Amino acid sequence: MKPVVVRTIDRADAAAVETLGSLGTSSVHEAMGRIGLMKTYMRPAWPGAAIAGTAVTVLAQPGDNWMLHVAVEQCRPGDVLVVACTTDNTDGMFGDLLATSLQARGVRGIVIDAGVRDVASLKAMGFPAWSRAISAKGTVKATLGSVNIPVVCAGALVNPGDAIVADDDGVVVVPAKRAADVAEAGQKRVANEEEKRKRLAAGVLGLDMYNMRPALEAAGLVYVARLEDLDR
Amino acid sequence: MKPVVVRTIDRADAAAVETLGSLGTSSVHEAMGRIGLMKTYMRPAWPGAAIAGTAVTVLAQPGDNWMLHVAVEQCRPGDVLVVACTTDNTDGMFGDLLATSLQARGVRGIVIDAGVRDVASLKAMGFPAWSRAISAKGTVKATLGSVNIPVVCAGALVNPGDAIVADDDGVVVVPAKRAADVAEAGQKRVANEEEKRKRLAAGVLGLDMYNMRPALEAAGLVYVARLEDLDR
Amino acid sequence: MKPVVVRTIDRADAAAVETLGSLGTSSVHEAMGRIGLMKTYMRPAWPGAAIAGTAVTVLAQPGDNWMLHVAVEQCRPGDVLVVACTTDNTDGMFGDLLATSLQARGVRGIVIDAGVRDVASLKAMGFPAWSRAISAKGTVKATLGSVNIPVVCAGALVNPGDAIVADDDGVVVVPAKRAADVAEAGQKRVANEEEKRKRLAAGVLGLDMYNMRPALEAAGLVYVARLEDLDR
Amino acid sequence: MKPVVVRTIDRADAAAVETLGSLGTSSVHEAMGRIGLMKTYMRPAWPGAAIAGTAVTVLAQPGDNWMLHVAVEQCRPGDVLVVACTTDNTDGMFGDLLATSLQARGVRGIVIDAGVRDVASLKAMGFPAWSRAISAKGTVKATLGSVNIPVVCAGALVNPGDAIVADDDGVVVVPAKRAADVAEAGQKRVANEEEKRKRLAAGVLGLDMYNMRPALEAAGLVYVARLEDLDR
Amino acid sequence: MKPVVVRTIDRADAAAVETLGSLGTSSVHEAMGRIGLMKTYMRPAWPGAAIAGTAVTVLAQPGDNWMLHVAVEQCRPGDVLVVACTTDNTDGMFGDLLATSLQARGVRGIVIDAGVRDVASLKAMGFPAWSRAISAKGTVKATLGSVNIPVVCAGALVNPGDAIVADDDGVVVVPAKRAADVAEAGQKRVANEEEKRKRLAAGVLGLDMYNMRPALEAAGLVYVARLEDLDR
Amino acid sequence: MKPVVVRTIDRADAAAVETLGSLGTSSVHEAMGRIGLMKTYMRPAWPGAAIAGTAVTVLAQPGDNWMLHVAVEQCRPGDVLVVACTTDNTDGMFGDLLATSLQARGVRGIVIDAGVRDVASLKAMGFPAWSRAISAKGTVKATLGSVNIPVVCAGALVNPGDAIVADDDGVVVVPAKRAADVAEAGQKRVANEEEKRKRLAAGVLGLDMYNMRPALEAAGLVYVARLEDLDR
Repeated sequence: MKPVVVRTIDRADAAAVETLGSLGTSSVHEAMGRIGLMKTYMRPAWPGAAIAGTAVTVLAQPGDNWMLHVAVEQCRPGDVLVVACTTDNTDGMFGDLLATSLQARGVRGIVIDAGVRDVASLKAMGFPAWSRAISAKGTVKATLGSVNIPVVCAGALVNPGDAIVADDDGVVVVPAKRAADVAEAGQKRVANEEEKRKRLAAGVLGLDMYNMRPALEAAGLVYVARLEDLDR
Repeated sequence: MKPVVVRTIDRADAAAVETLGSLGTSSVHEAMGRIGLMKTYMRPAWPGAAIAGTAVTVLAQPGDNWMLHVAVEQCRPGDVLVVACTTDNTDGMFGDLLATSLQARGVRGIVIDAGVRDVASLKAMGFPAWSRAISAKGTVKATLGSVNIPVVCAGALVNPGDAIVADDDGVVVVPAKRAADVAEAGQKRVANEEEKRKRLAAGVLGLDMYNMRPALEAAGLVYVARLEDLDR
Repeated sequence: MKPVVVRTIDRADAAAVETLGSLGTSSVHEAMGRIGLMKTYMRPAWPGAAIAGTAVTVLAQPGDNWMLHVAVEQCRPGDVLVVACTTDNTDGMFGDLLATSLQARGVRGIVIDAGVRDVASLKAMGFPAWSRAISAKGTVKATLGSVNIPVVCAGALVNPGDAIVADDDGVVVVPAKRAADVAEAGQKRVANEEEKRKRLAAGVLGLDMYNMRPALEAAGLVYVARLEDLDR
Repeated sequence: MKPVVVRTIDRADAAAVETLGSLGTSSVHEAMGRIGLMKTYMRPAWPGAAIAGTAVTVLAQPGDNWMLHVAVEQCRPGDVLVVACTTDNTDGMFGDLLATSLQARGVRGIVIDAGVRDVASLKAMGFPAWSRAISAKGTVKATLGSVNIPVVCAGALVNPGDAIVADDDGVVVVPAKRAADVAEAGQKRVANEEEKRKRLAAGVLGLDMYNMRPALEAAGLVYVARLEDLDR
Repeated sequence: MKPVVVRTIDRADAAAVETLGSLGTSSVHEAMGRIGLMKTYMRPAWPGAAIAGTAVTVLAQPGDNWMLHVAVEQCRPGDVLVVACTTDNTDGMFGDLLATSLQARGVRGIVIDAGVRDVASLKAMGFPAWSRAISAKGTVKATLGSVNIPVVCAGALVNPGDAIVADDDGVVVVPAKRAADVAEAGQKRVANEEEKRKRLAAGVLGLDMYNMRPALEAAGLVYVARLEDLDR
Repeated sequence: MKPVVVRTIDRADAAAVETLGSLGTSSVHEAMGRIGLMKTYMRPAWPGAAIAGTAVTVLAQPGDNWMLHVAVEQCRPGDVLVVACTTDNTDGMFGDLLATSLQARGVRGIVIDAGVRDVASLKAMGFPAWSRAISAKGTVKATLGSVNIPVVCAGALVNPGDAIVADDDGVVVVPAKRAADVAEAGQKRVANEEEKRKRLAAGVLGLDMYNMRPALEAAGLVYVARLEDLDR
């Protein structure tokens, strides 16, 4: 495919994105029907960061951050830069200079299936980053990639404009068209959980609250006093 | 084997468990004769947590946390939930709702050879968790496993009732019957280390304090001024 | 090769080492021409530590920390202990007793391609450690290795006396003879970056600041409004 | 998302698929513009197998092969079954019974981002399989997934009907709509390579055949007699 | 624990072990209730080997094969040597000299959670080995371990005398006391599979043969002509 | 460092290299004093290949095989191409066209810390390759590296001209200056092993042949009839 920069993308609804961010990745992932999660090797460069935004995507070459510079220009306030790589790579493709530039444009964070560096500075700046590695290794600017094409980042399909939710539990992708529905489903789910939390804190067992006992018995679960009592 | 829940287990002596907790994993592991340590991929969900307790064990299916709900009922104050999986899995099988339930029963923490989620909440609640991964991915409740059978968790054999010691250095298992002996041996070891620490801080070399020089010479260690002086 | 301890090594220039430490690993790595970085699995035992010093090297056997005790005697104030292992190993070869001894001799930290333990104590002492793992597993003292020979540590060649720079971004090795040149090049680089940072923060695009547009066009990058517009 | 089986899919052109198979993965991947390759952990269960076909896709749960049985019915002669998993899993989801069933329907092989078993039987049957693991571990049939939806398998996006090429070098996905173009580009490429091979075998250097010397000189490559001659 | 060699162990019934070997790992694992499988990183040093025997266990130190020499004396015809390591290690602890010695005693193979070497010789000798790695790296003989104690090898608990079944699909452990029962269950299972295989080869769908359609419908599986038809 | 090609290197003695090849990696590694082995992830692209030769070294960028074309010109009959990469990478940097070129110059094989492709062709040509991965992914020709400088390949230091020995057990590096000594030591070792092999095949125990019993007793090894007899 030709290297290309796509200038016009359809971003997920801004209000829905805000709601998704308030829900957090775990609730959003459940509300999605348990799909859209990136691989668990994606970790925050510094703990406690939590963001939501709309994806500007980059497909980069290993050890080459040329296209990140190109992508900056395509970003708007509220975006999240999502960087996939044509092959597994841990080089430090992203550091505090690029972060300065993104922050100046109102970008909320970066999600990159490669390495980041200048971790202490990123934390001091309050610029969040999720990556597969931390690495001081710098990169060349030699080979083209693309901006705002569909990419697979850490095992998840990301289309430009999709909603990205990221926090200490990982990174979840919500297709732009489903953002409003998922936000609504997630809000119901969280309200419901709050009620459950109170009952569980009061000592009610999940076994009873969820009425699991009949299903467990039907599935064949056996209770014995001691393991020796089991007729295997 | 049939899926089973064992209701009666022999827990390690409570006083011995307290002592083991005060010693920490590194000292306990040495006092055990350097066995019983889980694989080093088991890491705390948040740093600084340090616990000791008696194991309630779970054998779960990958991506399925049904049996964790079953296990909650078998827990007593002072227990630690130890979850093994029938196959390698990183899904977020454990989150803040289950933690609320365990905390309500006086459980001290969870050790799980899979993923946990809601990390920010777990830290806020002060509920400790050691796991192989952090993942927002939720799980189904479809297939039975067992509670309080012997399991292999992160490479270590855990029998129900064994003492579990966990901190920033990892997770160690002490067989219930050996808990008192190991606690005593560990206390002697720590007292001895305190004395050594003072001497080392004063500049005494370990080479002299441990009288290593004769053994090193006997083993054939050669000192030269420069590498070129070595007759290979 | 015979096991050997080399007593006399040529250390990198002290002033250059201080400068390298002030630059940090990412800038030093760039100034080196993007070589000399250890593998990214080397992580700090506690975040925020940042050191530079001269290498005293150890080649140890897996699960055996005998030679670390030998190496302590060869250390001077301003050194960093660099431990390679004859085979991949994650055992906790280094803990707070050895740290006490090193700290008493003015050593600035340890870089070890194996495991460390007593992480909470190391942090409390303020003694920095970079390692491939954290592990409570103790070690034997049974087999010889060597001190102050050239070693490959986490994929990087380290000669005794080389400058070691380590922080949250990783660990970089600078050959002793190149320390002064790299320090100078790094200082220029950082000064230059400060200027760039201001412009980027003011909203100037890297595309323009680095004058990338002609090169991108020459390389064949295409801009389209929508992906459908692309003639593949 | 609701679990679903899609019955009607648009398969890549059969003649183009045959051509792609004759080219092999390496040539196809080049002809594609170096995209579409699955992660290199996907290996053939037995060496020497080489196939091309049209994808019938499955999204399965970890440790659960229920949906593979569902997918068999959707397969036609010339298809390849492509199985993605909602989370990383190595269980032996596929063995000789399912292979017998697929072979009876004219399916050419399976590509599965999990484990396979009965390897000796698969080889004896001549049924090819590419997987991330080999594992005797059987699976349950408890939770639904989907058939013939877009999936990410081993890092590559696969739409139902896409052309799949697999051999000892790995697995490549060609979008159904691009199959004919890629097949044509690949054929030209291979014809061109044959010519080059003869010249290289005759001792012509690639440096000269590809006329690389001017570009290397422009990029700054220096030739010296000995490393000491280099002015760094 | 003190280093110890246990001379007397209770071996699984010889006839049952033969039967288990004829069934192969996948069938045995199913007949066991899907437990007892070692991690999938355990691979044969050469393909096509398939054995069953009774375990003589070794707990060795990393990079140290002293205890393997000790264990040879404890082996009888029909045994399989099972080697666990106190920590993760890939050194070549086992080669053709030890294999010659084991073969002279009628041992059927080795299962080792570390490395083996002399792979070409092992294949030429027809001595089977399953390991986590292949490595030319030799080992020291410096530190004691134990023989014939319970060990955790590649994630599975192995007691001395347990039946070990190993082939191209992996390694399965059957407790000595359960060997006869599992052998019987496995034989029934295989007979049953033969019948199924014929029907599947004749084109009968597993969906119908296993009567899966009602359960799939009950679980909520939806069939649509095209994905666009799905009401999400 | 500037990108450079070094034209003149000191190759290990040809006769010594032949001897090293006849010994194989395991014997050479022992004769070296158990150093010089590459990481065990380096595996042959096809089993059974066994070579020895003198190293022409390449330092390449990830996903870029430009410098391999440059290196071909520096090769002589009897050489082995050794390719290190500035960062971890698995792309298929080497295939049958480059192999044709190397074979035309009398090169014996390639050792590459990245990926190779065209595996079926390499096997058909009889051109041996050791690599960390097999991958159909092609590479760009965009960034310079160096030829014939010291490199770290798969964890081992390789200087141009060093002897490389590679077979099914892995890859070992012998410094050019030590080649003759190591070859001689290895020959003695192998002669000695032949004698031992005969005795072991006749049933003599290694325990007795190596006179290990006194050392084992001195180290504290205890023999008991049953584990219960052990006084822990």
